[in-house]
Amino acid sequence: MQRRTSKVSDAVIRRLPRYHRYLEELVRDGIKRISSKELSRRIGFTASQIRQDFNCFGGFGQQGYGYNVELLYNEIKKILGLNERYNTIIVGAGNLGQAIANYTNFRKRGFEVKALFDINPKLIGLSIRGIEILDIDKMGEFVRDNDVKIAILCTPRENAQQVAETLVEYGIKSIWNFAPIDLDLPNDVIVENAHLSDSLYVLSYRMAEREKENKEK
Amino acid sequence: MQRRTSKVSDAVIRRLPRYHRYLEELVRDGIKRISSKELSRRIGFTASQIRQDFNCFGGFGQQGYGYNVELLYNEIKKILGLNERYNTIIVGAGNLGQAIANYTNFRKRGFEVKALFDINPKLIGLSIRGIEILDIDKMGEFVRDNDVKIAILCTPRENAQQVAETLVEYGIKSIWNFAPIDLDLPNDVIVENAHLSDSLYVLSYRMAEREKENKEK
Repeated sequence: MQRRTSKVSDAVIRRLPRYHRYLEELVRDGIKRISSKELSRRIGFTASQIRQDFNCFGGFGQQGYGYNVELLYNEIKKILGLNERYNTIIVGAGNLGQAIANYTNFRKRGFEVKALFDINPKLIGLSIRGIEILDIDKMGEFVRDNDVKIAILCTPRENAQQVAETLVEYGIKSIWNFAPIDLDLPNDVIVENAHLSDSLYVLSYRMAEREKENKEK
Repeated sequence: MQRRTSKVSDAVIRRLPRYHRYLEELVRDGIKRISSKELSRRIGFTASQIRQDFNCFGGFGQQGYGYNVELLYNEIKKILGLNERYNTIIVGAGNLGQAIANYTNFRKRGFEVKALFDINPKLIGLSIRGIEILDIDKMGEFVRDNDVKIAILCTPRENAQQVAETLVEYGIKSIWNFAPIDLDLPNDVIVENAHLSDSLYVLSYRMAEREKENKEK
């Protein structure tokens, strides 16, 4: 199957996890085959959108005959890189860092947190679900020795850029960034932002809009 | 200033928190005035994109003369509903719920967590930064008595839909949803998803792509 992935737009990529989520549900429910129409009804994208999206990856289904659910699920999983395992570290072992270390779902998906790092002596030496919080001074050695692929950045805003640069020096090429800042890093470093405040502010925006509309009525 | 906000696209709305973030930095740095060119250089959107975005809200600046930073910051803040205060509750007091309760930044922005709710008797009665974890049975009364505007949904996937429906029955019209599921709720309920796995899978997608490209070289 020929892939034309280099042309895949950000919008398509951001829809893939949603396909993955719904297909997993279908697999869980024991559904073997699904039409693009039925998939569309469930997932809330138009059937034409779904076909277009899948065509970015060579298309998966037989028109009229529908999609083989398990095959499609496995393909999307592979495209998302979820058939790999990734050693990760969490940098910043405050509440958010600890919550992520505690969140066992990511481990099930292949993202294994090998250690947390912090500068706070009160945290260093503690463990979260058996994962140790280490002194940030040991990070370089740890990254080298443990084939760490992803750093999850949970430091305060003020330290994030500098810590990220240090991570890149240590050879980290993929950062999941929770710090509320846009990192400025070399182009070959992949940064995916999880800016929680941005999401919350979209919510308050919509609330303000609704309020205004209600007043206008 | 006339607003044409009803036509504002989702893409524009999702850029607003980023404007807010950068403008706040400018205010913090004591910068009084900025050209759209310089703003563009800092924020990473083109100057034309910035002008288009601002035009959705009537436009803010004087061409050639640049934007008054503080005025612009305050306008964006107001548009985002961040000059209001919102009483919130967290439903699901597991690690993620607790982490959010612990995250004091949201309070500074006007989002005050008044209580957490859970069904786990081991959690009920505990406090996170002085915020009590209450029995979910008391949620309806609490929502009514405390002018709760936002529910932050941190339950497991399995319970999320049902809990969300209960929240809507209690009069909640705005949900910040961390459960990895798309909620099916009446149209007048605002749901903003913070699907962390989706973000992580976009990261692993890009890693898989980079891996493939490197192999092809």
